[in-house]
Parts: sequence; structure tokens; C-alpha cells
Amino acid sequence: MAKVHNFSAGPSILPREVLEKAASAVLDFDNLKLSLLEISHRSKNFEAVMERARSLVKELMQLPDGYSVLFLQGGASLQFVMVAQNLLRERGKAAYIDTGTWASNAIKEAKIFGQVEVVASSKADNYRYIPKGYTIPADADYFHCTSNNTIYGTQIKEFPTSPIPMVCDMSSDIFSRRIDFSKFSLIYAGAQKNMGPAGTTLVVVKDEILGKTGRAIPAMMDYRTHISKDSMYNTPPVFAVYVSMLTMEWLVSNGGLEWIENINRQKAELMYAEIDRNPLFYGTVAPEDRSWMNACFLLKDPALEPEFDKMWKEAGISGLRGHRSVGGYRASMYNALPLESVQVLVEVMKEFERIKG
Amino acid sequence: MAKVHNFSAGPSILPREVLEKAASAVLDFDNLKLSLLEISHRSKNFEAVMERARSLVKELMQLPDGYSVLFLQGGASLQFVMVAQNLLRERGKAAYIDTGTWASNAIKEAKIFGQVEVVASSKADNYRYIPKGYTIPADADYFHCTSNNTIYGTQIKEFPTSPIPMVCDMSSDIFSRRIDFSKFSLIYAGAQKNMGPAGTTLVVVKDEILGKTGRAIPAMMDYRTHISKDSMYNTPPVFAVYVSMLTMEWLVSNGGLEWIENINRQKAELMYAEIDRNPLFYGTVAPEDRSWMNACFLLKDPALEPEFDKMWKEAGISGLRGHRSVGGYRASMYNALPLESVQVLVEVMKEFERIKG
Repeated sequence: MAKVHNFSAGPSILPREVLEKAASAVLDFDNLKLSLLEISHRSKNFEAVMERARSLVKELMQLPDGYSVLFLQGGASLQFVMVAQNLLRERGKAAYIDTGTWASNAIKEAKIFGQVEVVASSKADNYRYIPKGYTIPADADYFHCTSNNTIYGTQIKEFPTSPIPMVCDMSSDIFSRRIDFSKFSLIYAGAQKNMGPAGTTLVVVKDEILGKTGRAIPAMMDYRTHISKDSMYNTPPVFAVYVSMLTMEWLVSNGGLEWIENINRQKAELMYAEIDRNPLFYGTVAPEDRSWMNACFLLKDPALEPEFDKMWKEAGISGLRGHRSVGGYRASMYNALPLESVQVLVEVMKEFERIKG
Repeated sequence: MAKVHNFSAGPSILPREVLEKAASAVLDFDNLKLSLLEISHRSKNFEAVMERARSLVKELMQLPDGYSVLFLQGGASLQFVMVAQNLLRERGKAAYIDTGTWASNAIKEAKIFGQVEVVASSKADNYRYIPKGYTIPADADYFHCTSNNTIYGTQIKEFPTSPIPMVCDMSSDIFSRRIDFSKFSLIYAGAQKNMGPAGTTLVVVKDEILGKTGRAIPAMMDYRTHISKDSMYNTPPVFAVYVSMLTMEWLVSNGGLEWIENINRQKAELMYAEIDRNPLFYGTVAPEDRSWMNACFLLKDPALEPEFDKMWKEAGISGLRGHRSVGGYRASMYNALPLESVQVLVEVMKEFERIKG
């Protein structure tokens, strides 16, 4: 098969060896002569998967004691609800920074449960930068931020020091770089970018922040339920957890976050260097906030789009179109995307310049 | 490979041809040279899957106009919350029938949102029968029942005629028999028994019952959000929806609910005949309420269990142990379990009688 260079923004590229193991487990898991899809989640074989997945998260994040690791369902969007339901006290206040569509959805859901103070927003400037220099109110129950904004291509490079519990939606750059994860009281991430297939959500939560709202919380929406049952309160999304485990094993066995950070830096530097150099293109994001995961750029002359589209498609590139709400181009360079694919895209951009120049 | 007879209570057996197609899609989907796991859920290829899955549900259920079909996440347990949050009015009342652990969990979640009247319960008799002759209060917002109780092995054979919207958790016998689905205003089912792998939940809802509670509902918990976005408000559980679609295609192409009902009846008749005939065993459930999906039975002499266990395991039988909360044996005979597997189990029981008789 000719190679496809998969720049999809999510669900997105996964390592080939992970896909091969996943396909094999769908036919026969652990030599049980049964598919992974048709065994009990309470079998010792699947319990080992869940335990291994949890321990890989702890290893990758180098978490101190006092955190629980959960694999839930419902994506980051359900976490927008659960975070507020579990942390925002009755008559309390939460602080949010508005850096894009997903942050804005998180704010909307939180407002159902209490007061929300938006401490900073770059909305008026179409989210092309990450606000800085804002103050996190010490009297709020928590501060919520989004580490990477897929649609706009911005990324928080330095997280603030927060006087209150800091919550972060890391869906689109989880495990892509080294971070001091212990700065956060709650981290969540939909799996379908760097961690695995769509269908499971990682939640890492500091136990001590829970149980303080004074609110009656449905069992299924209460983090404490899932903690007490090791993510098996009800049937977990078995396949998505398994493939996430395989992806984390791939990451750890290759050298972990230090290794992938180095590769991701190389990909991003190569990509942005070409966007800046090539006179036909320009980047849409403030340079200091450029995401390593999603590089958003435009053709200066939009009339050239059909011709450029034809060229990158012919080169085997897939998924380069920007989000339907912003247009243009978006090169998503998640962990599993090899440097080679970025090189192919950069060559296409150079070739396009030669033709048009 | 020697055959495994998979009596697992869930996640449970799926058709072999479905597993083969699923494994193949994990490697290359629709000849895209990309895995199903690494393409956008907004690609035309996956949108076709979602559309096909919806239309297969409508075909199998022969639904009249006015219903929406959703594929969500979170299992039936999240539906315990969403049903009450979307249908139980502020200061309203809901009616529930308590037929087992899951019904009881549904009741607990509903109590967060309003008053719950339990119209009947068989709890005092360890849920060994389905209560009958109860009255559904006309002034409640809805009536909730559970069609099949996996843990106790009971099943509702005739549904009541309800003066108020009837809601049913069909997780463990969905698509196993013909039912007049139009009697229900809302049906939900976790996929992992008859429909597909763990990780997606089918919801079928009559549009006209929504939007009446007077309650502010988070967008992610509001059925209307998911209806307006065709189950794509956020990233759906792509793989679980795809495998559910394949399983429904298998069902339809073989003859649909009439075909599977006939096979399921044969399996159940064979199984219960042996439980009743064999002097070493007895069934735990009132005969008229016996589930076609989960046959629960015990050895009259529990001391014989280790010997019996050894025998069925040697015959390639898997997953026959009863739920950890009730013990004994449970033969789960979901759609994909062939009649042959039940014949093997019955032969083992007969052989055990010969040895011990």
C-alpha cells in the first residue's frame, strides 16, 4: 500500500504496531480463543489491561501519591459537566480562561452549576493567541484552562501558578511533552488524539479536592464512585481502554515524554519554518503561542486553494483541511505522526511555491 | 483452534463474521489505507456508518415517525441519570418497577431529580419473579421498567399498557425478539450484549416527550443536543458504533427479529428443559418469567460445584459462573450464541448426571 500521511485533527493517527495488535486482539485476545470484544470486563485478562493502563499513566506523568487515574466515557464534553458538578460548590464560583470553542463549551456547562468568572479571553481576536497576565481569583473553587486548542492552533507553553486547584483539559496535547503534572488538581483528556481511539476519556484527579460541593451528585457523575470501583462501576469501554494502553506502552518503550517531546519539537519547527519562509502562506497564530500539535495556516491567495489541495492529496496527504468553523489548513502533528510526513508536506509547499513563484 | 462456547453475561459473544470485519477495519477501513480508528468522525466514510446504524435500528424496530435514534456513551448507567434529568419535571414524580440491581440503580439516580414511586418490587424474594398486577399512576411523568434482568435471569414477557410515557432499559435483550416498540416513548440499551462491543449506548426517543421539565440541563446531558447533531455533538465512540452497525447488518441479513426470536426460543427451551429434567440442578426463577437471555440455575448439592466446573471447562465452555452477587450458574444465550453451544452444555449436564446418578 502507498503510504498515507495522516494529518487528521482527531480521531487521528495511531502507531501502526498499535493498530496491528488491536486488530489481532479483536480476533483472539491473550490466546483465549475469544475476542477482546466478547470477554467479561471483570475477567482477570481485562482487569490486567485496566491496571496496566492506570500504571502507565502514573509512570508517564510521574504523579505523586494522592491522585486517582480513571478511564471514563463521554469525551471531554462530559468532563465539562462533571468538573463543575464535582468541584463547584453550591453558591460557589469557578474561574475559566476562554481560549477557544472547547473552553467556551466548558464555560457554558459550568454555568448550570454556579457562577463562572472568565478571567481572560482571546475571543475578540478569533482566539489567535493565549491570554497572559490575568489574575486567578483566590476565592474561586477552581481554575480551568485548555492546554491546546485544536481548532485555532494555540497552546499554553507555561502554565500559571494557581492559588486554587487548577483543572486542565489536555485532550489534544496529552503526553506530547514534559509538564509538571503535579501542578494540576484535575486533568482530563479525550483519548482520540494522542492516547487512543475515540471512546474513552482519561481523568487524573487529586482525591482531596472531591466531596466538597454540598451538592447531591448522581452516582454515575461522581468521580468518587468511579474511584471506588477502579473505573469499573459499570462496563468500561473495553476496546478503547485496551488500545490506549497499547499506545502508552509504545510511548514508554520508545523513551516516554522526553523522547516524544523531542520529535514533536522537530516536527513543529520544520512546519512553522516553512509557513514563515514560504511567501505563498502565512500562519494565523501569535508565534509564541503556536501549537506543536496543530499548525494552522492559510494561503495568502485563497484562489490557489483548489490547486494546492490537488497537490497535497496527490502526495498521499490526508486530513489537512482546517476546522469547518475557521477554514484554511491545519497540519495536526500528533505523537504518532512521523517526522517524514511533515517533510513530505513541506516539500509539497516548496514545490507549490516553485510552480507559482 | 478448538471452539470456545462463550456464555459470558456481557460483554458477550459477537458473530464471528462481525469480528473479522471489525479486525480488518482496524487495519484498513473502506480501502482508505487508514484505520477506522484514525479517521475523522466527520469524514463521509464514518458519517455513512452512523447513518446506516441509525437506519438499521429503525428497520429492526419498525419505528413509526416521531422517534430519534442516538448512539451515545456512558452505558445504561448514564441513561439512569439522563432519563430522569430529561423527563422528570421539577417537583414531578416518576414511576419505577424494581426488578433487580440495575432497576434499583436507575431508581437511585432518579431520586436526585425528583420523587420516585416504586410501583412494584420483587426484591424481598431476591428478584426471582417479575411483579404483575401493579397500577401505573396516571399523574407520574413516566413509567420505567427493565425488560431483562441479567443478574437474576428474569424477563418481562408482556409489557403493561401505560397511561404515561413508558421508558425501558433493554440493555440485555435488545433485538432478541419481536416487540411492539411503538409502545415505548424511550428505549435505551448498552451495546455490549446483543448489539456490539462495550462503549456505546443506543437511545431511541420519541421527540415529543422532551423539553418539558423546566430544568436547566447541561448540553451534553440533553437528548435534544444529541438529536440536533445526529449523535455527533462531540466525537462519538467510532469503533463501537461501527461494530454495532455490523452486528445489526448480520441480524437483518439473516432474517431480522423473527429469525433470531425463533433461534433464541429454541436455545431457551432446550436449556430450561434440561434444568427442569436433570435431578442434580434446579432453576432459580419463576417459570413464567424465565429469561431467554440468561438462564440462572444451581446445583442442589453445592459441594459438587468444583467437579461440575471442571467438566464444563473441559468441554470448552466459558463464562458460566453466576454473577458475583448471587453465585451459582448463569447460561447467557445472547443472539450470537449458536444453538450448538447450548447443546454442548446440556450434554455436559447429562454426562454429569450419569457420573453422579
